[in-house]
Amino acid sequence: MRIGILISGRGSNMVAIVEAVKRGEIPNSEVVVVISDKANAAGIEKAKERGIETLIIPKAKQTREEHDARIVEELKKREVDLVCLAGYMRLLSKVFIDAFPNRIVNIHPSLLPAFPGLEAQKQAVEYGVKISGCTVHFVDEELDHGPIILQRAVEVKQDDTPETLADRILQYEHQLYVEALKLIAENKLEIKGRRVFLRQEFQKNA
Amino acid sequence: MRIGILISGRGSNMVAIVEAVKRGEIPNSEVVVVISDKANAAGIEKAKERGIETLIIPKAKQTREEHDARIVEELKKREVDLVCLAGYMRLLSKVFIDAFPNRIVNIHPSLLPAFPGLEAQKQAVEYGVKISGCTVHFVDEELDHGPIILQRAVEVKQDDTPETLADRILQYEHQLYVEALKLIAENKLEIKGRRVFLRQEFQKNA
Repeated sequence: MRIGILISGRGSNMVAIVEAVKRGEIPNSEVVVVISDKANAAGIEKAKERGIETLIIPKAKQTREEHDARIVEELKKREVDLVCLAGYMRLLSKVFIDAFPNRIVNIHPSLLPAFPGLEAQKQAVEYGVKISGCTVHFVDEELDHGPIILQRAVEVKQDDTPETLADRILQYEHQLYVEALKLIAENKLEIKGRRVFLRQEFQKNA
Repeated sequence: MRIGILISGRGSNMVAIVEAVKRGEIPNSEVVVVISDKANAAGIEKAKERGIETLIIPKAKQTREEHDARIVEELKKREVDLVCLAGYMRLLSKVFIDAFPNRIVNIHPSLLPAFPGLEAQKQAVEYGVKISGCTVHFVDEELDHGPIILQRAVEVKQDDTPETLADRILQYEHQLYVEALKLIAENKLEIKGRRVFLRQEFQKNA
């Protein structure tokens, strides 16, 4: 499985994926490229340090579709099988989704459908929930919306700030993303409508 | 703490509260009345069997406010301190909320703010979440919306139907509701905006 990772910032989930692949936790897989839409994304250096090819593809004056088509072109050129969003701050257009049907995944720091969009951890603290978490899901054209692969619940403590909650959730994000990619690499998942199932032959040994 | 419970149906959470009070799990408390807006609510018989006074107050042709005022009158007459909604299928009007400020609680079978409203368990299964749960919250004028007291996460299994999920969540509802009422009876909670805190003096021993 040839993985391409899209980032916009520090890329901590990108690093978690790269390291897990190196440790052999995601079988038969390779991270072939890390692409950022921001020239100053701190994750770019981290990818380079780990020997991964990096590209900066800024949106600049292109339309959303043109920008997405540029990224798709680079991914296809490298025969990427699976696209992982890791703090990539742009909504994908139909061009992009159609180029990788059910082959784009994202992680979001809440138990979706609660708190989609920006600053999910701040939203959770301000709403006053006692439980939040993180979600790995397939990506569709709606924001933080596609079929859910895995979720992990994380306790919100009463003295949590958005920052302390974000830090706590982040630890679980790294584990959950790797776990989800392992299921995909092993071809264990089946999507029916909005629901993601473990294929029948794997259910007993899951 | 004199508790009044409002039901519309089988009243399984009502029974859980009544039994917990009897076992002494909710200190210094008494369930003084169970009120249903439906004449045929199965919970009414269960309350009677347990020696609790019951009233049927159907909405009939009154306005929502008139109906709520009738119920408030009966609750006040019995010096009710805390109103518990237990499968009560009506949204409370301002008349009701203002009569019991921060003294009305509800339980909802999802991790709010996900899946408010009817058939929360069906909504959860159809959305394809991997984690749902239940929420005990103070009641405000918006549906399933007030400050959250406690939440419990419950796993959604891939072969769950709305019914099997509802059954699994219901076990936790009973525990969670009793736990929340215990905190209220012991005056351990403090509401600040949307957030519910354990008062400082109880935080160490919580």
